Amino acid sequence: MAVIYAVVVGPGDPELLTRKAERIIQKCSVICAPTGAAEAASYALSIVEHLLDRSRQEVITRVFPMLKQGPELEAAWEESAAEVIARIDSGEDVAFITIGDPCLYSTFLYIYRIIRKKRADITIEIIPGISSINASAAAAGIPLGIASDRIAIIPAAFEDYELRKTLKEFDTVVLMKVSRVFDRIYALLLELGLVDKGVFVRRVGSPQQEVIFDLSTLLGKELDYLSMLIVRR
Amino acid sequence: MAVIYAVVVGPGDPELLTRKAERIIQKCSVICAPTGAAEAASYALSIVEHLLDRSRQEVITRVFPMLKQGPELEAAWEESAAEVIARIDSGEDVAFITIGDPCLYSTFLYIYRIIRKKRADITIEIIPGISSINASAAAAGIPLGIASDRIAIIPAAFEDYELRKTLKEFDTVVLMKVSRVFDRIYALLLELGLVDKGVFVRRVGSPQQEVIFDLSTLLGKELDYLSMLIVRR
Repeated sequence: MAVIYAVVVGPGDPELLTRKAERIIQKCSVICAPTGAAEAASYALSIVEHLLDRSRQEVITRVFPMLKQGPELEAAWEESAAEVIARIDSGEDVAFITIGDPCLYSTFLYIYRIIRKKRADITIEIIPGISSINASAAAAGIPLGIASDRIAIIPAAFEDYELRKTLKEFDTVVLMKVSRVFDRIYALLLELGLVDKGVFVRRVGSPQQEVIFDLSTLLGKELDYLSMLIVRR
Repeated sequence: MAVIYAVVVGPGDPELLTRKAERIIQKCSVICAPTGAAEAASYALSIVEHLLDRSRQEVITRVFPMLKQGPELEAAWEESAAEVIARIDSGEDVAFITIGDPCLYSTFLYIYRIIRKKRADITIEIIPGISSINASAAAAGIPLGIASDRIAIIPAAFEDYELRKTLKEFDTVVLMKVSRVFDRIYALLLELGLVDKGVFVRRVGSPQQEVIFDLSTLLGKELDYLSMLIVRR
């Protein structure tokens, strides 16, 4: 029986693909790039373009509306899952490619859940890759954790109260999806005396990569969706 | 000038090396495998053995005493750092290979800090790789985080009080270095009604990989050093 793979293509640099990811992408006849933003789908595809042979591989790009939940999004996932199941039933291996880790805030997780529920007989294999968190820490040259450090990974959209607590209690805090709420986060860091402990990493692993230690330069700016803030005491 | 690279070789499977890691390992004339356990050094080397040419590459294995801190360990690091600096000064590129992420609880971080302090002129480049956390979640087929989930990564050796708090407040808790304190952690999970929410992953990515959902089978056993416990509500 055919298999569904979730393949992490890494944060941007095609050289950060693993051998296994390359092999799986080349063997699958269907490549899916599901995403919450059209830009991210084409970005994921650009990383693996050199591996694709569109004369024998079908590429399905599907953009999911950027809603937290609701019937419209649910319907889109159901439809996408059905599309994939049909391919599997006709004997085609399917690779979902994701720029982030499929286990970490990924669109794939929703489809995974639906397929698991509908068709427990289908094998879904996750091919791990380099997460943007590890790549960002590496690019910034900072540790995520040493010895007995505690690390928290949280979406930056949380309430100030929650963020403040986490920033106080953990040695390292990775703030995901920070672009839309950066100014608010900056004010919080200022209040906690942590402004000089943060590093903003944008488009890690891509030619547009930027590592910014002076957070004040980012205030009031339109920031990249593919970015994160790491705060390390 | 020669460069120091910290290269993540992934959790075990050589196919999970990135192209970049392969290229850097092959180009360096000195390969260092520093570790807290002799077993881990030979494990890291076994993952890259097929890439090495010992006729032109020098392999340095160094075991650091398993002490939290203290003058003996500090001296060992100082010596190791001096050894590396000497190689760099004679124009040789040096690759430190680590099975874990160099930014995550890695022995390399200590040497990195010493070299940074002594010789700011030396370029140290971190080549990110697949962390055992991402690989373990992939192997277990569980998400680390979805939507607005909060994730904590903490060493399992913490006090019960701290662990209890973290297990209550976070959606996913990754407990590192769990092997020596497993029975205590199990009792804590039992108390919090989380026993069936945990998954134990041992030697992820290696032929010895095991994913264990029934945690009770691990009680009273000698557990593998290279293992972790992921608790997901």
